[in-house]
Amino acid sequence: MMEKVYGPNYASPKRVVMCLMEKQIDIEAVILDIFKGEHKDLDFVKLQPFDLLPAVQDGDYTLYESRAIMRYYAEKYKSQGTELLGKTIEERGLVEPWLEVEAQNFNPPAYNMILHVLFAPLLGVKSEAKVIEESEEKLGKVLDIYEERLSKRKYLAGDFFSLADLSHLPYGHFVANQMGKGI
Amino acid sequence: MMEKVYGPNYASPKRVVMCLMEKQIDIEAVILDIFKGEHKDLDFVKLQPFDLLPAVQDGDYTLYESRAIMRYYAEKYKSQGTELLGKTIEERGLVEPWLEVEAQNFNPPAYNMILHVLFAPLLGVKSEAKVIEESEEKLGKVLDIYEERLSKRKYLAGDFFSLADLSHLPYGHFVANQMGKGI
Repeated sequence: MMEKVYGPNYASPKRVVMCLMEKQIDIEAVILDIFKGEHKDLDFVKLQPFDLLPAVQDGDYTLYESRAIMRYYAEKYKSQGTELLGKTIEERGLVEPWLEVEAQNFNPPAYNMILHVLFAPLLGVKSEAKVIEESEEKLGKVLDIYEERLSKRKYLAGDFFSLADLSHLPYGHFVANQMGKGI
Repeated sequence: MMEKVYGPNYASPKRVVMCLMEKQIDIEAVILDIFKGEHKDLDFVKLQPFDLLPAVQDGDYTLYESRAIMRYYAEKYKSQGTELLGKTIEERGLVEPWLEVEAQNFNPPAYNMILHVLFAPLLGVKSEAKVIEESEEKLGKVLDIYEERLSKRKYLAGDFFSLADLSHLPYGHFVANQMGKGI
C-alpha cells in the first residue's frame, strides 16, 4: 500500500511521515514549495481548506491535520509495525493528554521561536525579540514538567513509546539541534 | 458509575461535562475557583502539572486536557449514549481533523476575544484592542470555512454529530451569545 503525503519535507508533515514509517506504510511524496506559495494553489485548497500542510490522500479519502492523520493510521493499522497508541483504551487514554500537551503547550512556543529565530529572514517577516524571549520562557516551563515526568517513566505516556513522543520530534529537532538549544 | 470532574463550571471543562452527559455517565463536581487561584493548590498541581482545568479522576486513573478526556470516554463507552466518534475508523478519521481544527484554528482566536473583551477587567489584565481585532479577523476566516463546509453536510465531520461539533459549544456560546456576535 502507498499513501500520498503532501509536503513531507516540512516539519508538521514529518510527524505523518514518521508515523507511516513506524507503521511500515509506503509514501508517495507530493512536494509543495510553501516559500513559493504552492500550498495556496486552488487544487490544494480544495483538499485542505486552511491551506495548511500536511494532507494525505488514500484514494478518495482525504485527511489533514498531522495529529489527526497519525491517529487514523495508528488505529487503522494497529497490529502492523510499531504500536503507537498503547495496547488498551486505558493506555491510549494516557497517550492522548500528552499529544494534546504537545499541540497546546509545547508546539506554540517552539513554533514561535523557530519562526522568529530561523525563518523570519527567509519569509521577509520581522524577527521580534520579545516573542523569542516569551516563547523561550514558556518552552522552558514545559520542558521542566517533561523532565520531572520523564524522571519517573521512560516515555511521556508511560513505559511505552507512542504518538505523544513521536509528535515532538520535528519541532524538537529544530529547537535542540538547528537552534543549538540542546535539551 | 460516577466520574470526578474538576472545575465543571468553566468553559474547557464543559466540553467534558457535555461529553459525559451524552455518554450517560454521572458526574461528581469538584469546584475550584480560578479567580482565587485554587487551581494552583498543590493537591491539584499533583494531578495536573500545568495547573489547567479540567482534570478527571476515575479511581486512581487521572486524565487531563478536555479533548483527550472526551476521546477516552467516547471510546471506552462507545455503545452507551450518543456515538461521538463515528461508527467506523474511517468516520473517526473525519472527526479527528475537525477536532484539531477546533483546537488549533477556532479556539485560540475565540479564547483571545473572550479573554480581552469579557474577562480582562475581572482578571486585572489589560484589554488590548489590537488582539481583539486580529482575533475577530482570524475567527471570521475560520467561520467562513465552516459555513462552506456545513452548506454541504449536516455536521463538521459528515452527516453525524460528533466530538468535533460538541467541542465548539462552550467557546461558541461565549462568542455567539455572551458577546452578542450571533453567528
